[in-house]
Amino acid sequence: MVRVAIIGASGYTGAESIRIILRHSEARLTYLTALEAECGAVEDVFPQFKGRCSLQIEPLDFAKLADLADAALCCLPHKVSMGFVPKLLEAGLKVIDFSADYRLKDTSVYERFYQVKHTDADNLARAVFGLPELFRERIKGADLVANPGCFPTGALLAIVPLLKKGLVETDSIIVNAVTGASGAGKNPSEKFHFPNMNENLFAYGTGTHRHMPEMEQIAGEIAGSKVQILFQPHAGSFDRGILSTVYTQPRKNVDDEQLFGLFSDFYKDEPFVQMRKDAPAVKDVVGTNYCHIFVACIKGRIVSFSAIDNLVKGASGQAIQNMNIVFGLEETLGLK
Amino acid sequence: MVRVAIIGASGYTGAESIRIILRHSEARLTYLTALEAECGAVEDVFPQFKGRCSLQIEPLDFAKLADLADAALCCLPHKVSMGFVPKLLEAGLKVIDFSADYRLKDTSVYERFYQVKHTDADNLARAVFGLPELFRERIKGADLVANPGCFPTGALLAIVPLLKKGLVETDSIIVNAVTGASGAGKNPSEKFHFPNMNENLFAYGTGTHRHMPEMEQIAGEIAGSKVQILFQPHAGSFDRGILSTVYTQPRKNVDDEQLFGLFSDFYKDEPFVQMRKDAPAVKDVVGTNYCHIFVACIKGRIVSFSAIDNLVKGASGQAIQNMNIVFGLEETLGLK
Amino acid sequence: MVRVAIIGASGYTGAESIRIILRHSEARLTYLTALEAECGAVEDVFPQFKGRCSLQIEPLDFAKLADLADAALCCLPHKVSMGFVPKLLEAGLKVIDFSADYRLKDTSVYERFYQVKHTDADNLARAVFGLPELFRERIKGADLVANPGCFPTGALLAIVPLLKKGLVETDSIIVNAVTGASGAGKNPSEKFHFPNMNENLFAYGTGTHRHMPEMEQIAGEIAGSKVQILFQPHAGSFDRGILSTVYTQPRKNVDDEQLFGLFSDFYKDEPFVQMRKDAPAVKDVVGTNYCHIFVACIKGRIVSFSAIDNLVKGASGQAIQNMNIVFGLEETLGLK
Amino acid sequence: MVRVAIIGASGYTGAESIRIILRHSEARLTYLTALEAECGAVEDVFPQFKGRCSLQIEPLDFAKLADLADAALCCLPHKVSMGFVPKLLEAGLKVIDFSADYRLKDTSVYERFYQVKHTDADNLARAVFGLPELFRERIKGADLVANPGCFPTGALLAIVPLLKKGLVETDSIIVNAVTGASGAGKNPSEKFHFPNMNENLFAYGTGTHRHMPEMEQIAGEIAGSKVQILFQPHAGSFDRGILSTVYTQPRKNVDDEQLFGLFSDFYKDEPFVQMRKDAPAVKDVVGTNYCHIFVACIKGRIVSFSAIDNLVKGASGQAIQNMNIVFGLEETLGLK
Repeated sequence: MVRVAIIGASGYTGAESIRIILRHSEARLTYLTALEAECGAVEDVFPQFKGRCSLQIEPLDFAKLADLADAALCCLPHKVSMGFVPKLLEAGLKVIDFSADYRLKDTSVYERFYQVKHTDADNLARAVFGLPELFRERIKGADLVANPGCFPTGALLAIVPLLKKGLVETDSIIVNAVTGASGAGKNPSEKFHFPNMNENLFAYGTGTHRHMPEMEQIAGEIAGSKVQILFQPHAGSFDRGILSTVYTQPRKNVDDEQLFGLFSDFYKDEPFVQMRKDAPAVKDVVGTNYCHIFVACIKGRIVSFSAIDNLVKGASGQAIQNMNIVFGLEETLGLK
Repeated sequence: MVRVAIIGASGYTGAESIRIILRHSEARLTYLTALEAECGAVEDVFPQFKGRCSLQIEPLDFAKLADLADAALCCLPHKVSMGFVPKLLEAGLKVIDFSADYRLKDTSVYERFYQVKHTDADNLARAVFGLPELFRERIKGADLVANPGCFPTGALLAIVPLLKKGLVETDSIIVNAVTGASGAGKNPSEKFHFPNMNENLFAYGTGTHRHMPEMEQIAGEIAGSKVQILFQPHAGSFDRGILSTVYTQPRKNVDDEQLFGLFSDFYKDEPFVQMRKDAPAVKDVVGTNYCHIFVACIKGRIVSFSAIDNLVKGASGQAIQNMNIVFGLEETLGLK
Repeated sequence: MVRVAIIGASGYTGAESIRIILRHSEARLTYLTALEAECGAVEDVFPQFKGRCSLQIEPLDFAKLADLADAALCCLPHKVSMGFVPKLLEAGLKVIDFSADYRLKDTSVYERFYQVKHTDADNLARAVFGLPELFRERIKGADLVANPGCFPTGALLAIVPLLKKGLVETDSIIVNAVTGASGAGKNPSEKFHFPNMNENLFAYGTGTHRHMPEMEQIAGEIAGSKVQILFQPHAGSFDRGILSTVYTQPRKNVDDEQLFGLFSDFYKDEPFVQMRKDAPAVKDVVGTNYCHIFVACIKGRIVSFSAIDNLVKGASGQAIQNMNIVFGLEETLGLK
Repeated sequence: MVRVAIIGASGYTGAESIRIILRHSEARLTYLTALEAECGAVEDVFPQFKGRCSLQIEPLDFAKLADLADAALCCLPHKVSMGFVPKLLEAGLKVIDFSADYRLKDTSVYERFYQVKHTDADNLARAVFGLPELFRERIKGADLVANPGCFPTGALLAIVPLLKKGLVETDSIIVNAVTGASGAGKNPSEKFHFPNMNENLFAYGTGTHRHMPEMEQIAGEIAGSKVQILFQPHAGSFDRGILSTVYTQPRKNVDDEQLFGLFSDFYKDEPFVQMRKDAPAVKDVVGTNYCHIFVACIKGRIVSFSAIDNLVKGASGQAIQNMNIVFGLEETLGLK
């Protein structure tokens, strides 16, 4: 039984992690931490867990942590996380980090997009990018897994088979994605105030979204050469889910059937990637760790569609999938 | 042409008032004010007015106000309003006040529910409760109209014909109402953060909602005796609208047809009250100044249903209806 | 391992039952049936189950059923169900029936509300009403469990402690409830067409809703005398959940603390009923088998609030809770 | 006073046209028609018009039509419309046709995409494409205006300044658009059943949407050469609005400021097109005839964003704008 701590348990990814671990047959929650102001009984912080979890969320005590847990799901924000992760590792835990702090291998890119100096280059070098469909073998032995961003998860799964085969141009990829509002986190803001966000849809982060270099890094690693991606996120008036519509330019003629074959083959052993013969809907995957993909050739372009739940496959579900792999458990535990 | 100022123009009722006045053929906006921090070009504060209104929202200057406007729609919050209204009146304007400050005639009730001393008893005494369907004649000559609360508007229209005729017990009225989230105002909060409020419904203000004494005061005035109302509000995951379901105990047998006749007769000259032969939906009235009502006898009780748009008939639309009456204009101008 | 068949697997309660059984550690799906026109691979009928369930939904064959299953979740509509249940029982299965056909003990009431002759009085007599919080002992030995309606589940849990203690008048109970749109079932209709239902809220079934006699029957059984309930349902623009606001008249003075104590004591051993100290939100229980309850004394009335997920505690979850009880399994399996 | 008939008044664009004409100061509704099964008092067909419109919706009688109306808003479906338009014109009316039947000048393209023979080539030849921002002069003298599709309206306004100046490649335009669910029309269907469509987002019409050739025709006319557009529509869980995100490849370097200048200049006299300095939200234009546009240079591409209300600028509002132009009225009447 893996003993799991959640660091930063008071946000949406914390709650989603609690929900999943509660029904995991070989892992159990042992320690939940948050900033002092957000502590309290789980059932007071999250009424949905009343009667389901009797733990307290407490301020982090590293000694207690070392004593109580084998794994840490570190749900801290970008920039904050790298201040904690070294100590979590020192405490002897395996760490799945939800922030961007250990995703971008090039600290200059990190520093440009996150506007802060990177302070933990050592662990960054050792961290493994936690997309099991691409890096399962590396994850197996890892102490520190950088759990991917929600948008990169959806976008990458939609195109890596193409990149792997060198089938598409690498300088003209366009990722158009729409996320549910939970992607904005739990802090109230004007844009996400219900009467503003409801019945709404808008683009944001034009040209500047931090998931763009993350996509490019991994896509580049798979393609074996520099990849340039124009990533345009949008926010929609639904709770959960990301629909990515990805446009690529094929290098040679390819038809729908060949594309379906290529993707089906690439993902044939993947428990959480499902190839569809029609366009997936966000609602088909909400609440699950699945990614549904459809790919078609349209007017000389390849268009790939992928749907994930941003809080599950895009965050907590994938983290627990990674944790399962790290600890040698059945990969799908808690997630089926 | 009535020259209209909006005091506190930066909130939801301000925006809705702007929207309505923009298409009013005998009134025009001349002066918009707000707290310094919320000032700016209308089209910057409210992108929906880009190209439709070239005014600035400015800090309030009473001299300028006196010069520029005939009517003030005072959209300030409870407690704040009574600090401004005396000066608006002194400046020679007719005032339609959106706050509760001039609604409750008994200052001890006001002070108990609003937890603040009432500082303008003089104007309170002169203020007219702005529900045209009940008090049109008084409104005609008024300098100061207390625009009704959104819940009292919906609830009262659903039962005053019964109270007027003495048809129902006055000690056992239950008002169960659900409001759209715009009722909570424009300030972001945890409860109304989109991922929390979306797909949700909850009761609030159990036993303490401030619209309860307001309903009781007007209902009592109509009934000619003390009326006790159990008012239970709920918030739902839609932008606009209030659906009130009101349960009353008849004093004698009455059937559906008699009830329909009674209500139809009571409202026969009212432009904005429509009697329905089936239960009204919130969506039937959203964006309009109409109130749709259905009334039925069920298991020995009378159940009245009313639907209004909380920002229109429940706030800005009714205010402009009142303004039209005060200035002797066609009552429906800007509102059809 | 209990082998479970779902009869009428192609609707919303069928899908929800599949979802729950898929993660039940001591039950597994073995046979899914539907009308010919709605058959096919589960993953084609419900894309959300792609990769999660490899069964086919097939036309019902009783011989096959007898061979393959121990339990039948019978998700057929009212009136249809009683044509199938006798044969399911004959085939040797334990049956949890989702329809109203075995809930109303008085066939004359059934026939008045459902407008059809009851054709299976024998099994009706033996059927047990499947609200475990009230009838757990009876359910243990039952062959046929009549799974309660969604509204009765929410309403009854909110008031039975009061009725059991004789604390409230039994002739003046008012149940005001709002259900999510999934309550209308999967067949497209004008009222539930997205652009009509979205951003909407309306009352329906005024005075005629079929769950009214069901509530009265069980409430009467608990109270030990005839109970009259005015039940008014509403439909809201959210997927799932029922919020019930129930107004009762106390027979003697009682305060909030006494009420909380009474309810807490009544439900102290119940795994799925949680007493709250504030009003529950629909979102606190969505996706779970929990019922959250808050009760308060307001202006001389007792107001009880309960929130459930209409498809879980109000249908499939409760059915599986009943199945667990019938088969002597841990009651919460698959439902935590 | 222009006397307006609406042919096919019982659908969403009919209702929206009624709403707008009701507050048009120089036009009034005189005749509303629909299929027999959808006839009745306006207030029965559309409860939102109770007390606002006393007309009947009747089966079409051409003699009556000729007698009662000057203008026909023809809201009939594709393929049906071309059977009626010739007779509407013969009756002496100016016709604004909402269908696609008079939009595609090349009947072979029409016949391929709509799978039916075009039967009115004569009027097709004379019909004017009703996008006032491009073809105002032609519209002025027209008897028959083909009102543009909703997607082409949003997409074209977002890129025509670029095409006019020859600034972008014409073989690689990608239009990614999301429409509100009202775009699917009023007929209930499985996909748009509330519990299916709510909290959802999906792509549809991959490679086959009928608005694609319409966009290409007009874009080609503006560019002066063949234009190829990859158009991918999506449906989102909101009532109204279309957000188009359009990706184009510039032929030479251009920066954000130049783009803003180019667009601002192109649209400087347009009452309903507003240039934004940030990405527009669907909610900024809902309920209005406005189109908000933002354009930016991102990673070597030009990305244009436009937001319209699909039922107003994308249908009924634009039709009435066209009607105003045809009759020499102030173009913005009824639409401000």
